Amino acid sequence: MAEIKIFNPDGMTKPAPYSHVAYAKTQELVFIAGQTPIDGTGAVVGRGDFEAQCAQVFANIHTALRSVNADWKNVVQFTSYLTHAEDAAAFRAYRGREFPKMFPGNAYPPNTLLIISRLADPDYLLEVQTVAAL
Amino acid sequence: MAEIKIFNPDGMTKPAPYSHVAYAKTQELVFIAGQTPIDGTGAVVGRGDFEAQCAQVFANIHTALRSVNADWKNVVQFTSYLTHAEDAAAFRAYRGREFPKMFPGNAYPPNTLLIISRLADPDYLLEVQTVAAL
Amino acid sequence: MAEIKIFNPDGMTKPAPYSHVAYAKTQELVFIAGQTPIDGTGAVVGRGDFEAQCAQVFANIHTALRSVNADWKNVVQFTSYLTHAEDAAAFRAYRGREFPKMFPGNAYPPNTLLIISRLADPDYLLEVQTVAAL
Repeated sequence: MAEIKIFNPDGMTKPAPYSHVAYAKTQELVFIAGQTPIDGTGAVVGRGDFEAQCAQVFANIHTALRSVNADWKNVVQFTSYLTHAEDAAAFRAYRGREFPKMFPGNAYPPNTLLIISRLADPDYLLEVQTVAAL
Repeated sequence: MAEIKIFNPDGMTKPAPYSHVAYAKTQELVFIAGQTPIDGTGAVVGRGDFEAQCAQVFANIHTALRSVNADWKNVVQFTSYLTHAEDAAAFRAYRGREFPKMFPGNAYPPNTLLIISRLADPDYLLEVQTVAAL
Repeated sequence: MAEIKIFNPDGMTKPAPYSHVAYAKTQELVFIAGQTPIDGTGAVVGRGDFEAQCAQVFANIHTALRSVNADWKNVVQFTSYLTHAEDAAAFRAYRGREFPKMFPGNAYPPNTLLIISRLADPDYLLEVQTVAAL
């Protein structure tokens, strides 16, 4: 069982809903491919609906985590890619609302938020890559 | 020796040529800088030729893996950056053709595919970042 | 204490200021959220001044490393995102000048340099994501 400590060092901002540092003492790591807003059949969910796509992306990450008997508390790194800068506020709002339920005690994993040109499918509005420690 | 399990969880798509999850029980990790289509002298290979650049990028990754006595089976994460969305189909075709030889048993590592504005040199059409477990 | 080996394999270029491979034998990893050019109050530092923003980003990474009793020698992966391709030369110049002091013996961690559309705040000219091994 990994010993995970997620925190914001002294002298740095207290961002939310993410933290600056995740420390993991572990011998078991899980690398999850960037999750996109598709369902189990491969169909795009919520075309043009950022909120619906967020929900699907995090549902997919959770399915992947559960497949190795892990859960949100095991996440040590998120890297989040958006294709439209104007969705960044909605992404923060989504996380601000949902992450407190997913990550009790404000133990929000480090996140890097990037606006890029495109994802594999032009209908994908976001993709989130995850590393977890068991 | 790492215990590596690469798979697609129930309820998720079966993408190819990549998988959703790589689990690694390990105490030895290898981080390989994003590999670009340059040869050992630093010269760009296959200017304007996406296929040739793919071959060089994966050749470079393999050289790096071999330098730590690792091989394709040790890869637990790829992150792939393309500079032109229209090359995504060729990238899938290249992997669809070559990966079955590199990754027997369909044990394709997780991959995140991103289309970005530019790489370090405007002649680079792709770059692939790799993490491996020994 | 991690055993870390940073090197350039035979047959590959000798890039600077980064290396192709970081090997880490470790049970302790640290994932640091992408660091941006903001100070401890959250204010953007060096608006429009790439050099000043570089200094702040690496100062933030160092603060995060010190918070887990780590230092530059523990870094096994950098991923660097710039929003303007024309800043790439200045980024190389900054690292060429500062990294020899930060990473003695030319043990420069692997880096992947990416030019993307935008970061979380349009005033951020760069962001650097870091993984370290303790």
